[in-house]
Amino acid sequence: MNCLSNKICTPEEAAELIQHQEVVGVSGFTLSGYPKLVPKALAKKAERLHQAGIPFAITLYSGASTGESCDGLLALANAVSERAPYQSNATLRKKINEGTIRYLDEHLGLMGVKIREGSLRAPTTVIIEASHISEDGKIYLSTSGGNSVAFLERAENVIIELNSRYGEKFIGLHDTFIPDLTPGASPIPLRFSSDRAGKDYIQIAPEKIKAVVLSDAYDEVKPFTQPDSIAIKIAEQILDFISYEIKKGKLHEGLAYQSGVGNVANAVLTAMANNPSQAPVSLFTEVIQEACLPLLKTDKLKVASGTALTLSPIAQDEFIQNIDSWKKHFVLRQQEVSNSAEVIRRVGVISMNTALECDIFGNVNSSHVCGTSMMNGIGGAADFARNARLGFFMTPSTAKDGAISSIVPLVSHVDHTEHDTMIFVTEQGLADLRGLSAEQKAKVIIQNCAHPDYREELLEILERGLKTAKGRHIPLDLSSAFKFHQRFLETGSMKS
Amino acid sequence: MNCLSNKICTPEEAAELIQHQEVVGVSGFTLSGYPKLVPKALAKKAERLHQAGIPFAITLYSGASTGESCDGLLALANAVSERAPYQSNATLRKKINEGTIRYLDEHLGLMGVKIREGSLRAPTTVIIEASHISEDGKIYLSTSGGNSVAFLERAENVIIELNSRYGEKFIGLHDTFIPDLTPGASPIPLRFSSDRAGKDYIQIAPEKIKAVVLSDAYDEVKPFTQPDSIAIKIAEQILDFISYEIKKGKLHEGLAYQSGVGNVANAVLTAMANNPSQAPVSLFTEVIQEACLPLLKTDKLKVASGTALTLSPIAQDEFIQNIDSWKKHFVLRQQEVSNSAEVIRRVGVISMNTALECDIFGNVNSSHVCGTSMMNGIGGAADFARNARLGFFMTPSTAKDGAISSIVPLVSHVDHTEHDTMIFVTEQGLADLRGLSAEQKAKVIIQNCAHPDYREELLEILERGLKTAKGRHIPLDLSSAFKFHQRFLETGSMKS
Repeated sequence: MNCLSNKICTPEEAAELIQHQEVVGVSGFTLSGYPKLVPKALAKKAERLHQAGIPFAITLYSGASTGESCDGLLALANAVSERAPYQSNATLRKKINEGTIRYLDEHLGLMGVKIREGSLRAPTTVIIEASHISEDGKIYLSTSGGNSVAFLERAENVIIELNSRYGEKFIGLHDTFIPDLTPGASPIPLRFSSDRAGKDYIQIAPEKIKAVVLSDAYDEVKPFTQPDSIAIKIAEQILDFISYEIKKGKLHEGLAYQSGVGNVANAVLTAMANNPSQAPVSLFTEVIQEACLPLLKTDKLKVASGTALTLSPIAQDEFIQNIDSWKKHFVLRQQEVSNSAEVIRRVGVISMNTALECDIFGNVNSSHVCGTSMMNGIGGAADFARNARLGFFMTPSTAKDGAISSIVPLVSHVDHTEHDTMIFVTEQGLADLRGLSAEQKAKVIIQNCAHPDYREELLEILERGLKTAKGRHIPLDLSSAFKFHQRFLETGSMKS
Repeated sequence: MNCLSNKICTPEEAAELIQHQEVVGVSGFTLSGYPKLVPKALAKKAERLHQAGIPFAITLYSGASTGESCDGLLALANAVSERAPYQSNATLRKKINEGTIRYLDEHLGLMGVKIREGSLRAPTTVIIEASHISEDGKIYLSTSGGNSVAFLERAENVIIELNSRYGEKFIGLHDTFIPDLTPGASPIPLRFSSDRAGKDYIQIAPEKIKAVVLSDAYDEVKPFTQPDSIAIKIAEQILDFISYEIKKGKLHEGLAYQSGVGNVANAVLTAMANNPSQAPVSLFTEVIQEACLPLLKTDKLKVASGTALTLSPIAQDEFIQNIDSWKKHFVLRQQEVSNSAEVIRRVGVISMNTALECDIFGNVNSSHVCGTSMMNGIGGAADFARNARLGFFMTPSTAKDGAISSIVPLVSHVDHTEHDTMIFVTEQGLADLRGLSAEQKAKVIIQNCAHPDYREELLEILERGLKTAKGRHIPLDLSSAFKFHQRFLETGSMKS
């Protein structure tokens, strides 16, 4: 480690390498595998400069959301001018919605492609959390794949946060393959969740490494909570429906599962783990969540393929303790591959993603409250929903103690069009939209998924659409389209 | 032809084989390669039964739109209860918008997959226009690929319209490969527009063929018209932009072109043909339109891969006369392959599709007038736009003599979300949306693409959004969202 050891420095020294207005790429995806020490030092540097009247802000690109030490502190220090492609931090979100941080809300599976193709700006500096590095420039990632390969390919300056928590034990966890973008390149050589196509490290020119910062920080993931009764009710319906479809011969057995982040996806995996007759499953997903550990421990997990391993600190410790026997069950990929249309379709995936709101005609909003306020972002939901064999969007039928209906006349922002959605599920029931016309969809969504408190008004709006719409193909009453949202903005409740 | 010749019958006799409430699949895509005689006879049968008070209506599934002899006459005879996945016929459209025909508006690239997977109902009878058939059940298609393989795989009864216009000369034009849907199947073995992966015929059990009807009908395609000045202006900007991106190193050379149906796409191909320094191009598209013939004749067409060869009768004759020397430049595929996400991305495609309206935040409506009236359908636009390397949506900035602005505050129906769109072009100018925030997109779309008559009001609406929206990430003024559409419905013009 002679050469690299000369590059070991403090987070503050590393932060000095980053200039105002730089595009900085960081490792990390959904609170896992992001740098924690250098961003913190960078936030302090920004505050110091701002106090001296000197401007300092960066464009921050990542895999997906990072934790408080990165997104939170940098946003708080006004050190971010532009952010992409996803976030979930309260401070950052506030500034995006105030209009002080520009935000590019990108499909997670295409962000790296756009960087490599040149349609988004390439990072000049990257900060990568690594589990291990070698003198000749081999970088072994930590708990996420993200866009690290794409960023490292383009950036000139590399800062490594070497996290001793993982070390050499993590070697072999990743598959860092990304597809060649030359027109007419070969197919992505992956057919099953367990397949590997590349190396377990990223090779870069060692002279690109400008600083190495030593770390032992945990990923700042909140403790796993048991699913509530609404989530359990939604999960049960999803699992029943899948069994029924397989029994009818309408669904292949052995499809892999993609479960979005959140309560309901956890409830599905938990229910599988608790079911003694559940056959072992494969996950081909984006975020491997803590709920997959009970599956693993009950011998029901064949393999979990994803781009992030998002575990609470207690589970991080458990994972590291058991890594020798557990490693063979996990593959961490670059998000261009975990979320690739080609691979998702070929592997064969049942997708389960959370909707913020659904409309009666089958469109889904997964990102914007009342059409204007960014929640987190579209994330990878569309990568999966568009290419899944069977796709669920799920949400409790109401939010804010019933003041918000998750089923609305028209979604205030479309992330997934009526062409891309198949099944809606709330705790009220399930609506299978496949093969239905717009009018049929509206009836079944209102009847099966809407909360009884909102059902009548939704039916009235549909009836008005059927009577007054210029065309009856989509019997939408334009004047009532955002009635629920406008009432909520005026009165604090969507209820009439 | 002993066995098959016994099955030769009149269109009327063939129509007798089709029962009330059957799901009938037909060959054909965008007015090419669809059956013409049996549907006409079926329409007459329906009229006769209706006069006798006997109900008769079928579910009609196809590749895409068919001509007057099929979609038109069947709709006029009230012989269709449900239609999928695309149409462009005035009579059929009227009934869809009256609510008397259920219409499933599906991504064209996924229709066959859904039939094969069982999430849409499978046809029991199919009517296929063929150029040639063999005693042992080899079917050689005519001018379109469509969903014929998927339909023939599932249906029990097959009616052939054997069109003598094409005959054995058409052998070799098609590649009938469709991917295996078993989870973990092999990649689709196609890398370039010219690659072939399957046979040039479809093999079925010969006993499935219940009737053979002899035909010499032309595809009912309107004569090719030279592009107007607005289309030429839009096309010039697209070609200039592509050259500029290649020069800047931001776009690979040698990408294939996908051109949607219509005036502007024709103008692009025509401009290429008229440009003496244009290098030969490949098309990887859905519909191979007549405008590719001038490219071919000026030695600028390497290969055109598509699922339909849509030529006017004069050009059909010309194509057949020259088929021996021209055939090597064409591949007709099943639409599951021509529109496959995997293949589009790998081949590397520049997509050009027509928008009905675009909004200032980057969403595109390609199907519904005022959010309710079906025009044609989403078609294959999303298959291509979502997976293209560079994607254009183009439209004249106004319609109906200026009474309609194609740039609106919010589209009344979303077919392509802001996440899936890259470049908007009108005759006013071009907006490159890549890497822009919602507010930045709005400014550039209004400034570059909107017609001057609407620019001021669009800016006012944006300003109001920036002042009043709950969140500024998407500065949408909900109360003005459909102002243009509502004014149009009330006054006949979007102008204030």
